[in-house]
Amino acid sequence: MSSIQDNKFQAIISHAKEYGFVFPSSEIYDGLSAVYDYGPYGSELKKNIRDYWWKSMTQLHENIVGIDAAIFMHPTTWKASGHVDNFSDPMIDNKDSKKRYRVDHLIEAHADKLKEAGKEQEAAALLAEMERTLDKEQDYAAVKKLIEEFKIVCSVSGTANWTEIRQFNLMFDTKVGSVAEEADTIYLRPETAQGIFVNFLNVQKTARMKIPFGIAQTGKAFRNEIVARQFIFRMREFEQMEMQFFVRPGTEGEWYKFWKEARLQWHLSLGLEASKYRYHDHVKLAHYAKEACDIEFEFPIGFKEVEGIHSRGDFDLSQHEKFSRKKQQYFDNDLNEEGKPYGNYIPYVIETSIGLDRMFLLILSNSYEEETLTKEDGSADSRVVLHIPAKLAPVKLAILPLTKKDGLPEIAKELMNECKQQFKCFYEEKDAIGKRYRRQDAIGTPFCVTIDHQTKEDQTVTIRHRDSMTQERVPLSKVREIVTQAIEK
Amino acid sequence: MSSIQDNKFQAIISHAKEYGFVFPSSEIYDGLSAVYDYGPYGSELKKNIRDYWWKSMTQLHENIVGIDAAIFMHPTTWKASGHVDNFSDPMIDNKDSKKRYRVDHLIEAHADKLKEAGKEQEAAALLAEMERTLDKEQDYAAVKKLIEEFKIVCSVSGTANWTEIRQFNLMFDTKVGSVAEEADTIYLRPETAQGIFVNFLNVQKTARMKIPFGIAQTGKAFRNEIVARQFIFRMREFEQMEMQFFVRPGTEGEWYKFWKEARLQWHLSLGLEASKYRYHDHVKLAHYAKEACDIEFEFPIGFKEVEGIHSRGDFDLSQHEKFSRKKQQYFDNDLNEEGKPYGNYIPYVIETSIGLDRMFLLILSNSYEEETLTKEDGSADSRVVLHIPAKLAPVKLAILPLTKKDGLPEIAKELMNECKQQFKCFYEEKDAIGKRYRRQDAIGTPFCVTIDHQTKEDQTVTIRHRDSMTQERVPLSKVREIVTQAIEK
Repeated sequence: MSSIQDNKFQAIISHAKEYGFVFPSSEIYDGLSAVYDYGPYGSELKKNIRDYWWKSMTQLHENIVGIDAAIFMHPTTWKASGHVDNFSDPMIDNKDSKKRYRVDHLIEAHADKLKEAGKEQEAAALLAEMERTLDKEQDYAAVKKLIEEFKIVCSVSGTANWTEIRQFNLMFDTKVGSVAEEADTIYLRPETAQGIFVNFLNVQKTARMKIPFGIAQTGKAFRNEIVARQFIFRMREFEQMEMQFFVRPGTEGEWYKFWKEARLQWHLSLGLEASKYRYHDHVKLAHYAKEACDIEFEFPIGFKEVEGIHSRGDFDLSQHEKFSRKKQQYFDNDLNEEGKPYGNYIPYVIETSIGLDRMFLLILSNSYEEETLTKEDGSADSRVVLHIPAKLAPVKLAILPLTKKDGLPEIAKELMNECKQQFKCFYEEKDAIGKRYRRQDAIGTPFCVTIDHQTKEDQTVTIRHRDSMTQERVPLSKVREIVTQAIEK
Repeated sequence: MSSIQDNKFQAIISHAKEYGFVFPSSEIYDGLSAVYDYGPYGSELKKNIRDYWWKSMTQLHENIVGIDAAIFMHPTTWKASGHVDNFSDPMIDNKDSKKRYRVDHLIEAHADKLKEAGKEQEAAALLAEMERTLDKEQDYAAVKKLIEEFKIVCSVSGTANWTEIRQFNLMFDTKVGSVAEEADTIYLRPETAQGIFVNFLNVQKTARMKIPFGIAQTGKAFRNEIVARQFIFRMREFEQMEMQFFVRPGTEGEWYKFWKEARLQWHLSLGLEASKYRYHDHVKLAHYAKEACDIEFEFPIGFKEVEGIHSRGDFDLSQHEKFSRKKQQYFDNDLNEEGKPYGNYIPYVIETSIGLDRMFLLILSNSYEEETLTKEDGSADSRVVLHIPAKLAPVKLAILPLTKKDGLPEIAKELMNECKQQFKCFYEEKDAIGKRYRRQDAIGTPFCVTIDHQTKEDQTVTIRHRDSMTQERVPLSKVREIVTQAIEK
């Protein structure tokens, strides 16, 4: 990451805090690592993104329904899904500093150092050996030897006094139940997807869905990330927006293509630039996956994954059938109508999975601009503005009487009462109008309306557009409609 | 609870499952005790209640802003709030059955048995002694003696082989962090309120709020309830909708009254019957509380708390000031303008706290009706209908072409495309129209529109009203408006 990129990212983080978007969690207690709270404007922006996704998935698709499964699930769920056995990273501890490292990160950091020192060949050899011993053979003794051979040391203690390499599961666990001796260990879900899979037949039957159909869900998930970093990009507590689309085996290829394209279009429907997006097709696939890709966005910290589309086959439902001993099959009557024999089968699944917090960071960082302006008298000026898409903006309209007297607040409040039923408004009557505009720019309010003395004469107001800063005179009675049209566009 | 009440409650639970409102969590693994998942219609109803609360709190009140704090908080938060030390129940285990009891429940159940056996006086003596030893003196040794004296036995083992009485904390804990030896114990929040208190100054400053003002939040909370029961009424994982209103000390009495009244009005604004509501003013107050009451609703299982309003004084902010050593004071400039000296103070707080799941249960159970009908030919008929307020209904409009041919589906789909942008619609072209109406009744859809052959001639449709079952002929072009008006009312 270049220092310019880094500076911009830091400026966004500061802005997010200063203007009530994102605070470190429990900040008065010096924060909790890799956990964040959303403030007054952040909580609105986050909700607006969630609602926009939910509407586009469930309300606009007749063949997709929602659910809201609990964070707590039966622990066997995570045996079946593979998370108990496989959702872990190989870790190593330095005995002197007590610092724990993900083994691959430790080795890669050392390879970077070698490269910086001009030892390209040595670095390449190290990485090749890591790939063989760690990725392919998972021979931890050999990996440990490699670390010793290359004299890799802890950055804190400076020593090579390492423990053995062990698997560290990323799921949080807790005990549930009344009898301590018999209390069950349960997990905080590390993904929302399994809440959909275990409810597959319940949903299909009660909502009478026919394949192909989808189940959508938004909700919290938790991962005890070792290296949690980059602000809200990788958190220990985060929110996912996932949709599992169940299809007839043999049609998964076309549906994968469909959702890969449809999800990118969803992003573009927010007015985001296509040039900032790219697909990253996975070459290395999970053993059950047929195809997989990420939708990547150009964040200030570079191209990063914001959403994943995965063709998961029947892996999850088959596993749940095996572990629950309950059939997870769909009876496809249409097969019969097509002249083929009746068929029960476990559907194949296309998953679309987007991180709500990442989408929030995407909108926030992409909207952020430090603009240099020229005042009317020719002198230099500047502003910080968030070009948030109008339909996602925390506040849609600021209503600003020019002064606190002459009946202007009364007119403003009448407009406020008319508009606030429809969308989020903000009322302010103090300070110079320019200052008030700047504050609305900083939180991304697309429209400001000023009520002045002319309003009393001809019932018109000045409406100011955030991005262009242009102002126009419109009838007071049209304000609500103008804003409504812009946010529904 | 009478058996009629019980039957009705069981019927509602069955209906909730059969029609995709609420499923036991992880049901294919035989469920997880006291945890539930919301299905296709349940998730929509739950979201609609949450959105209605959020809008009424934040969008319609200029002096209330929202936040979305994390479930994970710094553990000192719960020291300060008193939850680590006091959020527990006295419990006793039977050594033979390993069953754990809440001590008060164990004793009360025995008193009930005595009463049933006609030993009224003995029961009264037992309860009086419990009140003295357990509630007042918290002398657990004396309570244990009482249990022995009355020969209270475990209902499973039948023995009186009891452990000592111990406190059992209701918070779930887990370990966070990378180094296992140093990992911190953190808690799943048992209430959302503290996420508001620790962010008080962050919110006040970034959103530039002036007292009196409120901070609203919705989100999950977790309690390891010993006796979790009554469907979704008391769950281990549940969702709260809380608002903390910060006021100048001395004004808490009037604001308590204001919110007590305002919150009841919110319930009534949904068209719910005032006669089913009552206040329950607390006589026994928490040591920091000034006034407190519950808003109770007449559920099928009797009058139960659905919301609480509490005048909490400066207890929470003072505790956080003490434990964080950071001032939690507000600078009240208005005091100066009123001619009084400048003043810094810790604001007093009025809290309104409503359980989202309980509100869901309230709407569901209050909407549920098994109606006896008379057919046109005089024969008896019946239906199950959910009279859910239109603005909360999962589906607003069902669009039903009378037949699958003659171009009726095409007209229906055109209407679908027009309406689904605005609200949640459901499309169905199979089965007899009466059967389709019944299914919509069962999920609480307020409007059904039938497209028939006359539609092709005069562009009118039949709109059917769920509650009255009346049908009227209206222009196709008016459907969207009719539904929109009903749900915005």
